[in-house]
Amino acid sequence: MKKKSKAMDKNYFQDHMPGNVCFGCGDKNSHGLQIKSFWDKDEAVCHWTPKERYHGWKNVLNGGIMATLIDCHCMGTAMAYACKIEGRPIGSYPEYRYATGTLNVRYLKPSSSKHLVELRARVIEVKKRKTTLYCEVFSQGEKTAESVVVAIRVFDERRNKKGDNQFK
Amino acid sequence: MKKKSKAMDKNYFQDHMPGNVCFGCGDKNSHGLQIKSFWDKDEAVCHWTPKERYHGWKNVLNGGIMATLIDCHCMGTAMAYACKIEGRPIGSYPEYRYATGTLNVRYLKPSSSKHLVELRARVIEVKKRKTTLYCEVFSQGEKTAESVVVAIRVFDERRNKKGDNQFK
Repeated sequence: MKKKSKAMDKNYFQDHMPGNVCFGCGDKNSHGLQIKSFWDKDEAVCHWTPKERYHGWKNVLNGGIMATLIDCHCMGTAMAYACKIEGRPIGSYPEYRYATGTLNVRYLKPSSSKHLVELRARVIEVKKRKTTLYCEVFSQGEKTAESVVVAIRVFDERRNKKGDNQFK
Repeated sequence: MKKKSKAMDKNYFQDHMPGNVCFGCGDKNSHGLQIKSFWDKDEAVCHWTPKERYHGWKNVLNGGIMATLIDCHCMGTAMAYACKIEGRPIGSYPEYRYATGTLNVRYLKPSSSKHLVELRARVIEVKKRKTTLYCEVFSQGEKTAESVVVAIRVFDERRNKKGDNQFK
């Protein structure tokens, strides 16, 4: 039983976003960052390895790309968390999609553009359609950025049409 | 005389960043966004046209890419503003480089991924090495995001070695 539950926890959130073309997290975007997020107890984790093109300065990961990773990781986490508190598997009915309300990033030190970065996010508040998350970025064992992100549920399959991609 | 000064104002900030490999603003990064910023009176303007790969959702510009545009546009503006208040041309000695301290973005509505976006930034405070900027994003005539960004001067040619790319 324990084993099964652990395997479920490693389900990637992004594998349950049908037709996702997003530059940060869409598996339908071959030019994108294609991040993958999964639960590690109460924290959502993302491991991602930069390509050279995502430099800010030489050997330093671009801050905007870090913001993109944080943003997409947190939107995925908001969706997965909603399923968790509703006691249902990620990807089950109804589908929810989140868009970013605010994205506040504090850069602490450079992240290497040559090594894997780890993001760890957790939900700090849910209020109606609004989920607030705290996300940390680590590079080579050091914390290099932290962020507070507000995700807004802008799509709910029970209320919106399937193809409705607009914010509200 | 007027004509000459107007021409100088349209100098792109990024044309004075030698060897810049940055994903957002480096002209030495052929895979990057290659933004260009220029003065329009007291506001720094950037016009940028998305490629399809930078989708968030279909036809909507990715929020992380918007953060990248804001970030790089503001770092360039902090550098150009420092030259302006020192009464010297962009690109003259000493070279300054800025890195992001904090990046706070509020998303107001979707930006089209099919149309040019305009960024307008202005400096709201300079305190020692720290420059605070306010930046707005417009898409199809509507304001779609606003941001407050803190830029830190991390490189000063008078103090650092030319090749020194590290923050601090």
